[in-house]
Order: sequence, then structure tokens, then C-alpha cells
Amino acid sequence: MRAPEPMVEIHRGPFVESQHMGHAVVCDSSGGIVDAWGDPDAVVLPRSSSKMIQALPLVMSGAAKAFGLGPDRLALACASHQGAPLHVEAVNAWLAELGLDGDDLICGTEASRDKALRFEMIRSDQKPCRVHNNCSGKHSGFLTLTKHLGAGPDYVDLLHPVQKAVREAFETVTDAESPGFGIDGCSAPNFATTMHGMARAMAFFASAGQRSDAMSSAAEQLTEGMIAYPELVAGETRACTGLMRAAKEPVAIKTGAEGFFVAIIPGRGLGVALKIADGATRASNCAIAAVLVRLGVLEAENPEVKRFLNPPVTNWDGLVTGDIRPVAGLCDQ
Amino acid sequence: MRAPEPMVEIHRGPFVESQHMGHAVVCDSSGGIVDAWGDPDAVVLPRSSSKMIQALPLVMSGAAKAFGLGPDRLALACASHQGAPLHVEAVNAWLAELGLDGDDLICGTEASRDKALRFEMIRSDQKPCRVHNNCSGKHSGFLTLTKHLGAGPDYVDLLHPVQKAVREAFETVTDAESPGFGIDGCSAPNFATTMHGMARAMAFFASAGQRSDAMSSAAEQLTEGMIAYPELVAGETRACTGLMRAAKEPVAIKTGAEGFFVAIIPGRGLGVALKIADGATRASNCAIAAVLVRLGVLEAENPEVKRFLNPPVTNWDGLVTGDIRPVAGLCDQ
Repeated sequence: MRAPEPMVEIHRGPFVESQHMGHAVVCDSSGGIVDAWGDPDAVVLPRSSSKMIQALPLVMSGAAKAFGLGPDRLALACASHQGAPLHVEAVNAWLAELGLDGDDLICGTEASRDKALRFEMIRSDQKPCRVHNNCSGKHSGFLTLTKHLGAGPDYVDLLHPVQKAVREAFETVTDAESPGFGIDGCSAPNFATTMHGMARAMAFFASAGQRSDAMSSAAEQLTEGMIAYPELVAGETRACTGLMRAAKEPVAIKTGAEGFFVAIIPGRGLGVALKIADGATRASNCAIAAVLVRLGVLEAENPEVKRFLNPPVTNWDGLVTGDIRPVAGLCDQ
Repeated sequence: MRAPEPMVEIHRGPFVESQHMGHAVVCDSSGGIVDAWGDPDAVVLPRSSSKMIQALPLVMSGAAKAFGLGPDRLALACASHQGAPLHVEAVNAWLAELGLDGDDLICGTEASRDKALRFEMIRSDQKPCRVHNNCSGKHSGFLTLTKHLGAGPDYVDLLHPVQKAVREAFETVTDAESPGFGIDGCSAPNFATTMHGMARAMAFFASAGQRSDAMSSAAEQLTEGMIAYPELVAGETRACTGLMRAAKEPVAIKTGAEGFFVAIIPGRGLGVALKIADGATRASNCAIAAVLVRLGVLEAENPEVKRFLNPPVTNWDGLVTGDIRPVAGLCDQ
């Protein structure tokens, strides 16, 4: 078992004040490791970075087609959106088409992460609802599949047909039996795998266009949806959205809680998985940008890339007191 | 240089999802190391954990006495308060006694961390002001000393008499020349030292009652103020306040940004300094509780201690999905 490696530093004045360690693996379409940091065999919970895997049964089953879901809806099924009006309206419309509403979601309530909407809701004494939850698109996908299968309403139960299909898809694309699961922030099971398994899964998505089986076709459609609708995958000012827009070639980029990130690079059949060992998002944002600069997908000097790769640390009075940066060499090709 | 050691684990289901490493040193009144984790020679910025050191000149100069500051004001000078009405009213009263107001503070504005007040201010379209900043008590102390010295208004300048006095006090109690400083969140210089230096400083405070020099007398008064007014040092639901109240013997406990914590245990002349290498507060809260359980200052089964030592991780729907816990052995005496 290899220890995680230093990946990101927090500088203040002349000092490295804090440091983040992590694991990362880049796989090619054969599932082989092209590059790695830390321990490729580390067992991890990919959290929301596995949403495109969790959406595979939605497409493979024919449910997405039966309900006429376009690429925007597929992007939303893979999203950790910020509950901005854009996302709330889209999820509400999707649920209405299913003859359902927010009360049918099992994801719990979360305040909108869109500041304007959050403040507006506080001012007008509106409580956050389940549609504002960042996972409400994924859950709308689960509900669509549930309806298509004529299954019961408890679609997050491990033995529900939806989760059984998710587990099967997960084990197929990671090419390994999952060692178990944790319950995610939105109450769905989140299946565990290794860093190598997760990078292999992303390489499966990246190389899906080279194959013609049903799972590959589903993976390709989901990847295309994410790439076509970056604003639905996260939202304005967020890393997934900003980095996808800034990329020099089509790439799907997806964060997960506790410092996870994945990237799918279809033009090269490459998949990337990254986990900051301590779970910090400020570090996973920086490190995924660094790895993608290293791969030539992102340009280090692009202002939108710099916002995550090398952001200033500012204080309460707006002074720049330091910066966040990848460790020396991480960006180097 | 020794690497930081594993201190805190984040569990989800059967998995360790994330892990936090750190440094910690316990010193006795001679400045000798009683116990240590990680690297005692690691250079660190103690951030707000150095507030009681930054307040030494306020007392030593005679300014605190001249302006009639009681132990509550001394506690506030050492505080990272949450800007609750209690703190806001106390700081406003203090500034008024100086013939000053919030605009004289140089700490920047920060929204109140007290949810009820923050929501009330959003509803009534009030903007956060400098008095709500968690450092406004420290800055009121700086202003008191500035007025006592008849010095200029830019009291956070490195060459201002206030900061020169702070640096001298810092180097005396850490017993080492500071290798430099960073600019803190509140724009004041934050002087660097080693983990050993910071633990030595806390042991100086803890053993101050055994000596009769002016700096020791000031250290004793500040420690007594913090212990007498735990609710002013942080606030309801916060770790400093909760752990001080739960302690089996008098102890001053103070957090700092980027995963710092210190403790002063006067009954034993012991000082503790702790830094989570990645800067996470969830981990520093847990680790300081663990070290104080190990020392017998806190009781692991006390519900208020458990809130920080071993809190559940809950999800958006309120389900317990895991927990935060110290690594095996950290609490053991």
C-alpha cells in the first residue's frame, strides 16, 4: 500500500501553511495505467464522481429513450448542480413530465448553493426543498428508470431493481467486484472501488465511441450530454463547468464529495480519477486542473483554469494573503 | 524533518473515506516536550491560536488597566467569536468607551456566523460590518493599546508600535526568533514559529501563575479571562466554548484557521499546540479533543466532548452515514 503523495500547497506570505496529499490514476482504453500518484490500489468511495456510472441503467434500459430524454436531461442525471433557477426549473419540468414532483425524490433537502436564490428564499421565508438538492437530477433519473421498470418507490434501497442495475454497471465499468458501499449524502448507495478501478471506468466512458455494445452506447450518450451542457453539470463559477468550458478539447469533468474528481477524455480514450486524501475540495479543484494541464487538455494560463489551478487566497478585507498551487512538477508534461 | 502523523479518520459505512494528518506537541513549564506527534520542528502559522499572545502587550503596557478592561474584555481580545448578538454588543460597547466605532477596526467585514442573526440581517437587508468579524475583539484590544500609546491609526502595520510589541512578546513566549509572518484573515501580521515554539508559548501561559514578572502576570490574566468567559472566546455550539465548559479542570482552549488548536492547562503547567497539516477544522476539533482526553482534561464519554471527538456524519436527509474519529490510540493515556 503506497501512501498518498503531496499534490497541493496552500501558501501564505513566504510559508507553505497547509498541504494536501492525494491519489490519482490516468488509464488508457485498455484499462492500463498511463500515469499515477499515490496508491492505485487504494479503496475509495467516488461519491458524485460516479454519477455517470449510476446513470448507465437509465439509458441502457431504454427508459431514457422511452421518456424522450435529450442530452440536457442526461447531463442533469450526471450533475451535482448548485440548485440555481436553471437547475430547479429543469428538474421540476422533468418531474412534471413523469407525473411526479419534488416529494417523490428521496435525496433530502439542501439549501440552494446559488447565492442570489438562497438569499431570496431566506427573505421570502421559503424553505429549501428536495429539488434544490445538488443530486436532484440523478434522482430524477432514478425515478425515470423506476417508472420505466414499474418498480416500487424506494429506489435507493440496495435491493431495488434500480440499485441492482447500478451495481452491475459499476462492477462492469470498473472491471472489479465492488468491496461494498457507503450511504451517500443523498441516501443512495455509493459503491466502492479502487483508484485504478475508477480510472478504468472513466477510460471505458472515454473509449465508448470505439465500441458498439449497449453499455458503451449509453456511456457515449452520457459523456456527450455532459460535454454539451457544462452549465447543467455544476453551474456558474463552479470547477466542473468552468474547466469543461475552458478545455482545448472535449472533456467531461465531474467532482465528488470528499475531494474526488474524474475526467473523461474521449479524443484520446483516457480516463482520470483523483482523490484528495483529506477530502478538501479546494485541493481537488486545483489537482484535477493540474493533471489536465499536464495532459494538455487545459492551458495553465487560461484565466478560467487559473481560478482553480492557482487561485489567490484573499482575506476579509479583500487583500491577497497567499495562494493555492499544485506541488512543483505536477503540471509538467 | 518528520512527516505529519495520521490523527483523524472520516468513516462512511465500512470504509475510511478520508484521513487527516497532523503535528502536535505537549510541553511542560520548562519548555520540554512531554509528548509529540509529527514534527516538533515544523514551521507553522498559528493564526488565531496566537491571539492570547497578541494580547500580551495590551495588558503588560498598562492599557488594559487604564481603560478598566475586566476579564470579559480580555477574553474577547483573545476570541474568534461567531459574531452573535452577545459578541457584537460587547465589542460595540468597548469601542464606544474608547470613543471609537466599527469603522476604526481594520479587520474587514465578515457575515455573522450566528445563523439567526445572519438570516435576520439578510431579511432586513443589513450588510455585515467589521464588528461582526470574528477578530473584532482582538482588534478592539489593538485599538485600546494604540490609544494608550497615542500611536497612529494603522495598527496592523508591521512597524506600528502595537505590532512591534506583539512580535517581541511572541518571540519571548515562543523562546525563538520568528522566521517571518503571513498576513492573517483580519489583515494583522501573523508570526510564524515551530510547533515546539507554540507549545512552549502555551506552557509559558500555563505556568504563568508560578512567576511574578509582568509578562507572566499578563499571561495569567488573559488565561483567567478565557477560562471565565468561554462563551466570549467562540460562542454557542463551537468547539473552544464547548470543550472549555466540558473540561474536568480549568483549561483555555483556542482554535485557529487552517486546522490549528492550542490548549493551556494551568493546573499542570502544560501547553498544547496542534496543527492539522491540510488545514481542516473538522479534524482539528477532533484531534484537540483526543489529546485532551489523553491528558485526562476531558472525558471521552461527555456528550459535549463527543460532539467534537466522535461526531456522526449525517446526510441531507438526516441519516447517519458515518462518523469522524481520532485514529486508534490517540486518546489512550
